Amino acid sequence: MTATLGSTPITAPGWTGKPRSGLALIDCDVHQIISKQEDLYPYLSRLYRERVEDQGMLLPGSGYFNVPKRAARSDLNTGCDANMADHNIHTIGSQYELLRSQHLDMWNVDYALLTGASVYPASVIPDPDFGAALCRAFNDWTMDTWASRDERFIVAISVSANDPQRAAEEIYRMAGHPQVRAIMLPTGSRMPYGNRFYHPIWQACAETGLVVGIHPGAEGAGMAGSPTGVGYPTYYIEVRMARPQMAMAHVVSFIAEGVFEKYPTLKLLVDECDQFWLVGLMWHMDADWKSLREQTPWVRRLPSEYVLEHVRVGSQPMLEPERREQFFQMLDAMHAERTLVYSSDWPHWDWDDPATTFPRMPEHLHQRVFSDNARELFGL
Amino acid sequence: MTATLGSTPITAPGWTGKPRSGLALIDCDVHQIISKQEDLYPYLSRLYRERVEDQGMLLPGSGYFNVPKRAARSDLNTGCDANMADHNIHTIGSQYELLRSQHLDMWNVDYALLTGASVYPASVIPDPDFGAALCRAFNDWTMDTWASRDERFIVAISVSANDPQRAAEEIYRMAGHPQVRAIMLPTGSRMPYGNRFYHPIWQACAETGLVVGIHPGAEGAGMAGSPTGVGYPTYYIEVRMARPQMAMAHVVSFIAEGVFEKYPTLKLLVDECDQFWLVGLMWHMDADWKSLREQTPWVRRLPSEYVLEHVRVGSQPMLEPERREQFFQMLDAMHAERTLVYSSDWPHWDWDDPATTFPRMPEHLHQRVFSDNARELFGL
Repeated sequence: MTATLGSTPITAPGWTGKPRSGLALIDCDVHQIISKQEDLYPYLSRLYRERVEDQGMLLPGSGYFNVPKRAARSDLNTGCDANMADHNIHTIGSQYELLRSQHLDMWNVDYALLTGASVYPASVIPDPDFGAALCRAFNDWTMDTWASRDERFIVAISVSANDPQRAAEEIYRMAGHPQVRAIMLPTGSRMPYGNRFYHPIWQACAETGLVVGIHPGAEGAGMAGSPTGVGYPTYYIEVRMARPQMAMAHVVSFIAEGVFEKYPTLKLLVDECDQFWLVGLMWHMDADWKSLREQTPWVRRLPSEYVLEHVRVGSQPMLEPERREQFFQMLDAMHAERTLVYSSDWPHWDWDDPATTFPRMPEHLHQRVFSDNARELFGL
Repeated sequence: MTATLGSTPITAPGWTGKPRSGLALIDCDVHQIISKQEDLYPYLSRLYRERVEDQGMLLPGSGYFNVPKRAARSDLNTGCDANMADHNIHTIGSQYELLRSQHLDMWNVDYALLTGASVYPASVIPDPDFGAALCRAFNDWTMDTWASRDERFIVAISVSANDPQRAAEEIYRMAGHPQVRAIMLPTGSRMPYGNRFYHPIWQACAETGLVVGIHPGAEGAGMAGSPTGVGYPTYYIEVRMARPQMAMAHVVSFIAEGVFEKYPTLKLLVDECDQFWLVGLMWHMDADWKSLREQTPWVRRLPSEYVLEHVRVGSQPMLEPERREQFFQMLDAMHAERTLVYSSDWPHWDWDDPATTFPRMPEHLHQRVFSDNARELFGL
């Protein structure tokens, strides 16, 4: 490869770049992406393959421009010029070798959670059978093309929330594979995910031990409503800023609907919605619960207790406080030693590398955030 | 009055209960509430009065139970038993004498912003003329029944966002009155308020010097969409938890749409949506703006700079951190010395009194939060 662009590991405070003892680094958000719709043809029934050939995948979009190169990192050493058309999220995100050499090997990643992305909008496609078929095809493609090639991969399978019963069937179909450790759903949805409509999905996850993942996607698209509680914003930056809002609504819903009482082993991972909203949410909801709990008597404990036991939050995009000590104040307030897991968001433009994103953390906290929290979450 | 219930001032750290030099206490959220729809009849045209007599005010609701007594404080000494049917938000919120004796005089309030509430849903009534007529009637009732009786009152007039031109007309009609210092809109809306649809309202506010107020109300009702970015939640506590989400969406929208560049003197007061979301919003949006500002080139400064210059946040409900020092860390991170104003939310059940809600603050910060920030905001 001709190195026209590229990055090399940066020696940041607190990061050695060398293997540590035990598990040192688990990345909870790595995207594998199909290069083209034809990748899924071998895994689709003839019926859907012919329809997709004729009319495309019909994945609903929300109509907001992203950054150039369809949101791909432009700093990667891919052998092609970053300005060329073939340097984009599809060519980059579909290459296992690139992920291996420029992420897994480079940073000594022990485990990487494959979180998909290509079929997130399947959850907001009107036809629940087609949505389920797209997820099933993508999962099979993922196992064949990615999981089987590297034992460092663990997989969050895609399911369509549009038909919880079909989603549960897909969970039972896939959960037996040792690399499958989670499901992944888009933030964009018709209802907050605690709603009883979705409980068959949570039941299947509880029974199989899969973590429930939520990741930005499909917001404002298809059957999902507007991406904010006050309608459709105008620009992409607003949709990004709506991610914590959607995360908050889902987490509040899981707690208020008693999902964690009904399924006491269920764990929730919220990726790529930033982090510090968790602080205000816990403080506010605890106070409100003290006054209002007669309305939701199945919520038997302080909401923050459910958060600390059941909810984990991905680190990317890691917020940048004005002053260094504020970073640690916020980590402390969110109980990062229990709630925060490292996520890179490979290979998107706003990814966070494990070395320079965080200031130097105490060894114990470093170990919790970069390894132990995720290890416990996924049973690694 | 027979004192069956009642509260007396509490001597809390940092609060003397005695007059200070200069303005000591400005309350930025006091509700005046009609006792019954007939209160507005003298201020409605015959056409609308007859319709309202026949079919009611048609104010859209969102279908979530609140606390008993229609969300009124039950600790007030009203002369009636708190368990009686006539102890509710309508009987309590419509009594000037009660507000005067048990709030304004009790706490030595220098100014109180009358924020209304009774006609917030006028903004999401389909018929824009009827919505505007309700607001106009409520404003006239407010001036006659409240503002004229106590010079400590300043008024946030109600306008309907449904027709920005008619809202602007109401602003120009009312802005000449020296007690009118703001408008008030509900959080519930069809679009984020930065949208260019609403700019005639902001232009009228900029030209007349009125502050733009936003307060929970009408979320999920009438023409407003769902109160979260992921659809309709199930329980009241979830709608309360959605308030910061809606506040975030509106503030982000004002900045991203360039409203503060277009109207450089415009000020925004966000009441009753809690506070600490402002911290993550500034940190996140500053970082995103650095990457994405080519998409919104009219946003010429760091988003946090617009926040610090243009956005003020009411203190109620004041979040309750786990530890005392976290309170001050958050106040510091949100630049409370510029952004935070005291709000009581009289006479709702979750009101915050000025003495016991806050821990003892340094004198300078106390003066900013309880007086100076609001004084500068409203030009008092």
